[in-house]
Parts: sequence; C-alpha cells; structure tokens
Amino acid sequence: MAEPSRPLDALNNARDKRVVVELKNNRIYVGKLKSFDIHVNVVLEDAEEHVDGEVKRKLGVIFIRGDTITIISPE
Amino acid sequence: MAEPSRPLDALNNARDKRVVVELKNNRIYVGKLKSFDIHVNVVLEDAEEHVDGEVKRKLGVIFIRGDTITIISPE
Amino acid sequence: MAEPSRPLDALNNARDKRVVVELKNNRIYVGKLKSFDIHVNVVLEDAEEHVDGEVKRKLGVIFIRGDTITIISPE
Amino acid sequence: MAEPSRPLDALNNARDKRVVVELKNNRIYVGKLKSFDIHVNVVLEDAEEHVDGEVKRKLGVIFIRGDTITIISPE
Amino acid sequence: MAEPSRPLDALNNARDKRVVVELKNNRIYVGKLKSFDIHVNVVLEDAEEHVDGEVKRKLGVIFIRGDTITIISPE
Amino acid sequence: MAEPSRPLDALNNARDKRVVVELKNNRIYVGKLKSFDIHVNVVLEDAEEHVDGEVKRKLGVIFIRGDTITIISPE
Amino acid sequence: MAEPSRPLDALNNARDKRVVVELKNNRIYVGKLKSFDIHVNVVLEDAEEHVDGEVKRKLGVIFIRGDTITIISPE
Repeated sequence: MAEPSRPLDALNNARDKRVVVELKNNRIYVGKLKSFDIHVNVVLEDAEEHVDGEVKRKLGVIFIRGDTITIISPE
Repeated sequence: MAEPSRPLDALNNARDKRVVVELKNNRIYVGKLKSFDIHVNVVLEDAEEHVDGEVKRKLGVIFIRGDTITIISPE
Repeated sequence: MAEPSRPLDALNNARDKRVVVELKNNRIYVGKLKSFDIHVNVVLEDAEEHVDGEVKRKLGVIFIRGDTITIISPE
Repeated sequence: MAEPSRPLDALNNARDKRVVVELKNNRIYVGKLKSFDIHVNVVLEDAEEHVDGEVKRKLGVIFIRGDTITIISPE
Repeated sequence: MAEPSRPLDALNNARDKRVVVELKNNRIYVGKLKSFDIHVNVVLEDAEEHVDGEVKRKLGVIFIRGDTITIISPE
Repeated sequence: MAEPSRPLDALNNARDKRVVVELKNNRIYVGKLKSFDIHVNVVLEDAEEHVDGEVKRKLGVIFIRGDTITIISPE
Repeated sequence: MAEPSRPLDALNNARDKRVVVELKNNRIYVGKLKSFDIHVNVVLEDAEEHVDGEVKRKLGVIFIRGDTITIISPE
C-alpha cells in the first residue's frame, strides 16, 4: 500500500508552477513557487500583488513568512 | 481494552471524503480531504470557497495552513 | 499520597459524555467528546453549533483545533 | 539558602482553594482550582462565569486552555 | 571579563521589590515580585490593579501568564 | 540532480542588497540586508521607514523581529 | 572567509548604547541596552516611554518581553 500523502507533497507538486498565496491580512500574491519549508515559508518568482483580481504591484522575487499565510493554491 | 482514539484519527477517517474547513477569518472551504499533518495543515481537492452557503470560487487543489483552521467536519 | 490530578484527566473523565466547547471567536459547539490530545485538539460526535442557547447547525463529527478553544465543560 | 520559588508554586498553593481566572476575552471564571499544568491549562470545580461582579452562569467542572488566561488569583 | 548580563538577571534583581507589570490588554498590576520563570510567568504579592494611576482593585497574590506581559519595571 | 532550493536561500542571495520588509502592522522598511536567522529576524543597514511610497524616517541600523514580518523582497 | 553576521550580533554591538524599541502596541521605549536573549527579551536602563517624539514617562530599568517587540534601532 502506498504511503498516504502529506500536505507538503502538494506544495512540492506545485514547484515551478504559478500559485496564489493568500495572507491573514487579506493580501494576495501570485507567482511561480520556487521554494518552501516546513514552516510554510515560501519564495515566489515573478510575483505580483493582486487586489480585487487586478495586478497592483509587480514584485519580482518575494519571500513570504509562513505564519502569515492562510492558503496556497495553483493559479 | 482498545487504545483510546485520537483527534487525528477522525481526520484519517475522513480522507478522500468531502469535508468543510472553517478558518479563523471566517472563510469556509469545502473539498475532498487528500492529506493532513500534525500541525493540521490540510490539502483539499476539488475545493470551493463558500460564502453564505453558496459557492463563491472554485479552487481545485488547495493547501490550508493549520494554524488558521478552527474546525473540520464532514460535509 | 495520590498523584495530583492534571487538567487532561478532567477531559479524560468527560470522554463519551456531552461537553460544551467555546472558541476564541465566540462559537459554541456541543457534542459527545470522542477524543483529545495534548494540544487540546478535540473531536466531538453528534455535534451542534449553538447560538444564543439555540441549536444553529447540526454537524455530526467535528474536529476542533486546540488553539482556538477557550473552555470545555460538561453540558 | 532556600531554592527561590517559581510561579507554578503559587498555583500549587492555591490547589483546592477558590481562585479567579481572567481570560484574554475578558471572561472571568471563579471556582475551586483542581489542577493545572506547565501550559497553565487549568481545571476548576464548582465554577461560575462572572460578569460585572455577578454570577452569570454556573458551570460545574471547567477546563480552561492556558493560552487564553491572563491572570489567576485567590478569590 | 565578566559574563554579559541576561534579561532575566534584571528580574532576579527585582525579586521581593515592588514592580509594575503591564499587559497587552493595557491592564497594569503593581506588587512585590515573588517569582518568575523563563516564560516570564510572574507572581506578585500585595498586588493591585491600577487604572489611570489609581488603585482599582486589591488582589493579594496574583499569577500573571507571561505571554500577556509587555513590560516589567521597578515601581 | 541539484538539491531543491529553500526559502532562506533567497534571503541569502539578497545579502548586502537593498530589500523591502513589510510588517504585520503595515509598516514598511527599506534597507541593505545585513543578516537574518531561521526565525526570519532581520538586520537592515541604511534603513528607512516608508509611508505611502515616501521616506518617513531614516533609521540607520535596524533589527526587525521575525514574527512581525509578512514579506521581504528586493527593492 | 568571515562567518556571515547574525541579527543578534547587531544587538550585541548596541550593548550599553541608547536604542529605540518599538512594540506591537505602538509604544516606544528609549534607553541604554543592557541585555537581550534569543527570544529578544530586552532590558533597558534609564528608559523613557516616548509619545509623539516627547518623553511621556521616565522608567529607570525596564524589562521588555521579546514577543511584543517589532523593531530595535540605535537612537
């Protein structure tokens, strides 16, 4: 029987793909997932801050501290 | 005498079933429970964000950080 | 001399009995206590969400993340 | 020279005596201190919720999660 | 060369002296510092709750949970 | 195959470069990243506090506690 | 090659110098940095509470709990 999957496996599958990261302060960042760790600290490339579905700022590389994140999903 | 059950056993029983996950920011996500860990980080498949009992957004796969979760229950 | 009791002993005595669980967000859940762990994660069966002393929703099995809980008491 | 006392010693001295427990959400519980642990999780017996110095609810046994507590003092 | 001092040394020097303890919820307690631990849990004796520089309540012995404290200083 | 990169590698690449650090309280600090640790505590040099895109204060060296940080990105 | 510096090194360099400590509750304390630890608990001497750039209170020695601190910088 296969080992049951773990939540970080889903992040691993999303590596190098564009994901949406939503924060506790309601900010939304969209970018290519470059790395993450067990604290769910995350680095995005080609990142944009979105407000009301529109790009508000282009940010390039962005480090997001894990404890501010609520959800991560593919774009 | 059987070992008393633990809370994560209940999540294990819900694996591959649809669950409702409620967050501290009052967001509600419904989807198929694919994985979880001891921090109660959770991954849902075919996930939807619900508002007032209506589907607001379809999200596909979603990683939810455990420390934002209040309750998880079968749909 | 008997070992002094510990807080989780009180939860153990409540196992399979109906308890009231109050959360930091003021939600109240009432149900049969099936399991708990050292983080005070809790699973209730036949759970109901109460608002103003009335049953608002019936939830069946419910997993409650410990860090959202303020108090637990027998119904 | 005697060992300097530690904060939990004060709770130990209050065991089986009536104490007032105040929470971060401003709720106040008064009851007989039955047990506590290093997280300052606490169990009271014959507990009452007080509002404006009046008894609002009688609760019997109550488990209070330590991280919601601000202060504990003898009644 | 002497060992550099550590923050808890300052609390140790204040043992048995009157200190002011300010909490995140803006409550202020003044009393004789009897004990503290590495979590900065604190026990005061002859404690008073102060509001606007006036004594609001006399509390005797009081246990204050460390994670609610912002500052401690001699009276 | 190369080891997958980790989030702190991105901070390491930004060492001695100017970065923008945003805090949970919405303050924004811009400065040269001199050091960081696993808690994401950060030290900036030639730091400025920005408000509405304008420099509000010049601060020189600044230590920022990691748990107040939401994101870090190159200027 | 020299070991890269760490954030606490910057605090060490500020020992016995006057620093500004800003808290999550927007209070500002200015004083001579006497000690700190890995939790960023801090002790200041000759400390003053500042409001709107003015000295509001003189506090002498003050212990500040690390988890309430946002930034520390030389005066």
